[in-house]
Amino acid sequence: MASPPEGETFTIDAFHRGRFTLVQPAKGGHRAGMDALVLAAAVPAGFAGLAVDFGAGAGAVGLAVAARCPNASVLLVERSQEMAGYAERSLAHAGNFVLAGRVSLLVADVVLSGKARTEAGLKDRSADFVLMNPPFNDGRDRATPDALRREAHVADEQVFETWLRSAAAILKPRGRLALIARPASLYKILPAMEGRFGSAEIVPIHAAADRPAIRIVVRAVRGARGLSSLMPPLMLHETADNSFTPRAEAINAGEASLFGD
Amino acid sequence: MASPPEGETFTIDAFHRGRFTLVQPAKGGHRAGMDALVLAAAVPAGFAGLAVDFGAGAGAVGLAVAARCPNASVLLVERSQEMAGYAERSLAHAGNFVLAGRVSLLVADVVLSGKARTEAGLKDRSADFVLMNPPFNDGRDRATPDALRREAHVADEQVFETWLRSAAAILKPRGRLALIARPASLYKILPAMEGRFGSAEIVPIHAAADRPAIRIVVRAVRGARGLSSLMPPLMLHETADNSFTPRAEAINAGEASLFGD
Repeated sequence: MASPPEGETFTIDAFHRGRFTLVQPAKGGHRAGMDALVLAAAVPAGFAGLAVDFGAGAGAVGLAVAARCPNASVLLVERSQEMAGYAERSLAHAGNFVLAGRVSLLVADVVLSGKARTEAGLKDRSADFVLMNPPFNDGRDRATPDALRREAHVADEQVFETWLRSAAAILKPRGRLALIARPASLYKILPAMEGRFGSAEIVPIHAAADRPAIRIVVRAVRGARGLSSLMPPLMLHETADNSFTPRAEAINAGEASLFGD
Repeated sequence: MASPPEGETFTIDAFHRGRFTLVQPAKGGHRAGMDALVLAAAVPAGFAGLAVDFGAGAGAVGLAVAARCPNASVLLVERSQEMAGYAERSLAHAGNFVLAGRVSLLVADVVLSGKARTEAGLKDRSADFVLMNPPFNDGRDRATPDALRREAHVADEQVFETWLRSAAAILKPRGRLALIARPASLYKILPAMEGRFGSAEIVPIHAAADRPAIRIVVRAVRGARGLSSLMPPLMLHETADNSFTPRAEAINAGEASLFGD
């Protein structure tokens, strides 16, 4: 099984008021933050079924879903051996003892297609929910030169097309998708959804109420059509003193869902 | 020149605290409302140049721009003889006396292309700003069976493509576009903008802060690329008592711009 490189420094961080724990690299763009927690909050608290975390990294999104949704089982999918090693350590950590039985890990590349995807362990029509924070969003680098070269092939133009193709394949009919991205990526996301996902709801995420959105969360239904709603935005910080808004604080704590369900 | 049908009832309504007046049909979906004022507010107060109002109806959007932007000249473009008749009456009304010298009217169909569009009076690279509230947005009907039949040919699929094609043609390089539409139309708007408009800014318009957006205003630059900003939303009403929010009141009064410029 994969494991972190020798000598790499890491941190052990508690999230959701201690309801889950992440073992992650001490430095670099791999570290999980608010994006992961906001994305995980797109899953309704009452969700039951299999949620698949595409590009799971150390496991933040999937573990947050497992922590907040007691009837969810979770599959973390990560292609980087290094990051999968951190996910493995996260699952083995005592802080995730009550969750770990519902969470599993698959080292696989979500951009695989057809037979190669199935053989890698991503089975057609097996998932009830797919969550994704595609890697180019934060420009995080990859561990090895080989992986970096491979990353270069997944240009901005293609990342949503390939990730959404795989999400559509592994979801059951009426299964749901949630992704977090930059607002500018709407140009790529909407065409990549067409014919695959619909009844889409978008929540703009603003650092503060008087600033443009820094992220969008898009949630949609496999096999449905069109855009249904541009939802009220989530403001992360108060404009007055930059403290978290009550809603952001509740999402941060794993005590609220993003879509109010 | 076109004129309203004999015997049709109409109203004379003052907008922007009396700074412009609209002569419009007493009944039906033709009547101008908040959509027109919000769209007009997408033009910066300091704008100087020619603003073209596509599908101008009785002239609400164009007159609102003329009223708020003292250095703007405005061309109202309306294909319906009936509605152009109302626009003509609006321009002749004493309530628009100080504006009327900067506003003209063209009876033409904005979906024309090529030579036919030029011959109809819509000249290439002549405009600094194009504003549009495409007709299918509010499902407003057309005056005559012929026009209704013609409307049917401009299906939802095509309306943004054809209107944006014409807007792109008549705008000068770096000229600007603003449109108001339903959020669901983003699926059609973004592809129709690609290759023509960019640096797009979107303002979601919500009836109230706790409800999904009912409209979006998209503003973009001719010859630029991509989406630049998903802006803070405009909330029209207070959730507590349904009164206008201060910002909506200021836009309604012609005393604020939508993008803060």
